[in-house]
Amino acid sequence: MKPECGVKPMKLVRKMLAGDVNALSRLITMVEDELIDVAEVMQEIHSRLGHSYCIGITGPPGVGKSTLVEKLTSIIRAEGFNIGIILVDPTSPVSGGALLGDRIRLQSHYLDDEVFMRSMASRGKLGGLSKKVKSVAKIMDAFGKDFILLETVGTGQVETDIVSIADTNILVLMPHAGDIMQAMKAGIIELADVFVINKADLGKSGHLMADIESIVSDRKREDNWMPPVVETQAVNNIGIEAIFKEIERHRRFLKNENLLLQSRLGRATDEFRELVKDEMSTRITKLLHENEIFRKYLGKVETGELDPYSAFREILNLMPKF
Amino acid sequence: MKPECGVKPMKLVRKMLAGDVNALSRLITMVEDELIDVAEVMQEIHSRLGHSYCIGITGPPGVGKSTLVEKLTSIIRAEGFNIGIILVDPTSPVSGGALLGDRIRLQSHYLDDEVFMRSMASRGKLGGLSKKVKSVAKIMDAFGKDFILLETVGTGQVETDIVSIADTNILVLMPHAGDIMQAMKAGIIELADVFVINKADLGKSGHLMADIESIVSDRKREDNWMPPVVETQAVNNIGIEAIFKEIERHRRFLKNENLLLQSRLGRATDEFRELVKDEMSTRITKLLHENEIFRKYLGKVETGELDPYSAFREILNLMPKF
Repeated sequence: MKPECGVKPMKLVRKMLAGDVNALSRLITMVEDELIDVAEVMQEIHSRLGHSYCIGITGPPGVGKSTLVEKLTSIIRAEGFNIGIILVDPTSPVSGGALLGDRIRLQSHYLDDEVFMRSMASRGKLGGLSKKVKSVAKIMDAFGKDFILLETVGTGQVETDIVSIADTNILVLMPHAGDIMQAMKAGIIELADVFVINKADLGKSGHLMADIESIVSDRKREDNWMPPVVETQAVNNIGIEAIFKEIERHRRFLKNENLLLQSRLGRATDEFRELVKDEMSTRITKLLHENEIFRKYLGKVETGELDPYSAFREILNLMPKF
Repeated sequence: MKPECGVKPMKLVRKMLAGDVNALSRLITMVEDELIDVAEVMQEIHSRLGHSYCIGITGPPGVGKSTLVEKLTSIIRAEGFNIGIILVDPTSPVSGGALLGDRIRLQSHYLDDEVFMRSMASRGKLGGLSKKVKSVAKIMDAFGKDFILLETVGTGQVETDIVSIADTNILVLMPHAGDIMQAMKAGIIELADVFVINKADLGKSGHLMADIESIVSDRKREDNWMPPVVETQAVNNIGIEAIFKEIERHRRFLKNENLLLQSRLGRATDEFRELVKDEMSTRITKLLHENEIFRKYLGKVETGELDPYSAFREILNLMPKF
């Protein structure tokens, strides 16, 4: 993390908090490019957090997520709320095209100042993406967005981690595809608060509906929320109102059950644990690079003089005990 | 890791090394169930490692991997070699059915004593699977298997990690499906030494062939190996001999270039690093559970009294520096 030349980061934060969209945009870029001390930013904005309601929209490629995000944005805007949108693609540069596609599809909101959109890709490094997405969502929250839409493909571990920050999670599927199995494997099903069957006109949605319903009724959730299933045809703007109604219903449910605050504090706790763990592993990595004894035994393994387990045994007692 | 009652683990290892199939089977179960000190087993068998040649067979579900493994097994057996097979499914209990399917498809080798097969699933915990698969492969190696076939779905990070232990990696695809994109995203393409287009009778394989060839020619490998593409119809036993020929050709290439030993030592080095890292994170986790100061600040985050970043700042200087 190197400070960007000529920019006073906290000045930027204050401008952002005062409602400057340009400052918001620059701040997010600095977080993405690791040009700013994120911890400092987070401390600075902490008292302004908690206003936004975050909606995760997850589903396999081609299922129509972007169209759905676009139509949902229209409805939320029509209700008078402002919106931040984060499009996440945790894959290598390969996906440049897809992201561009998303941008094009969402262009109907380009001229709307109350819609702030950002694409985020991993740029090769998987590790940092989910943390960055979380930071960006917080910055949008502090900026004062009423809703944050968080779109991901949702098939990997990273994305499961990302969508865990959403208050309401929507899993988008379509008839035919065996995507429900993928979603189950990635643990996304457990996180879904609302199921959407998009492209319901393609037929066979009754089959998928039955699959979802059997999964939902099999897995009793701790919070007793019964995830509804909504059929949509996003391109024809059919069913989008119904999704928003279910989001609002879920939001009321969380509020009534006092789960909203509870889950947010839970996430803060996870975040604290993760910060500590990350710091410790940074220190360990440094240790592994610099420590003489470790390097000596590494050399013995590299040349085949010792097997990894014996070498490990030898240094076991030399490692810090805390 | 709790020792299994009434079993002397190292006695089991010695029986296994003496060729006792029952001991091999029990030992693997103990590794899977964490009932044995794996480090001790690995040290014990280390001098017996290096005989097996490991073949990774990776590809999306439904592409015909199991049929291919079955037919390949027949060919390798016909050449007079014995075989260990590991079927990996890094998904939750959900996949029980799929594994059962694999077992059924492979039943033609059930009565063959020289074929030892094992299914390995993650049983919910993703973290440990790849390490366990590596240990099991080593045990099969020490047992004296000439070939080890390692079948995985190969779409996740865990599996990329698993297949990295194979000497020759085969990526199985089929015409139509957009699976090549999936494989690219998961980084499997880079690991593939042989491409197989199975179900080549489904047509359009020319298209996929062109895709693969353009990817292969775009990415120059450090070792200068040019991955060949083989078309097969595994169910009709067409093209399997060609795969085995390419495996043997790749094996000779690795041997001639002195890459086999080199990559095995490289893997041992990675393993050593991982052992040290794992041990350190175990110690850190313990610290996080037991340390008074950490728990105090955790409490402050849990109640919302402090934000995670401020709490982190407070304890930063209290963490061990090494």
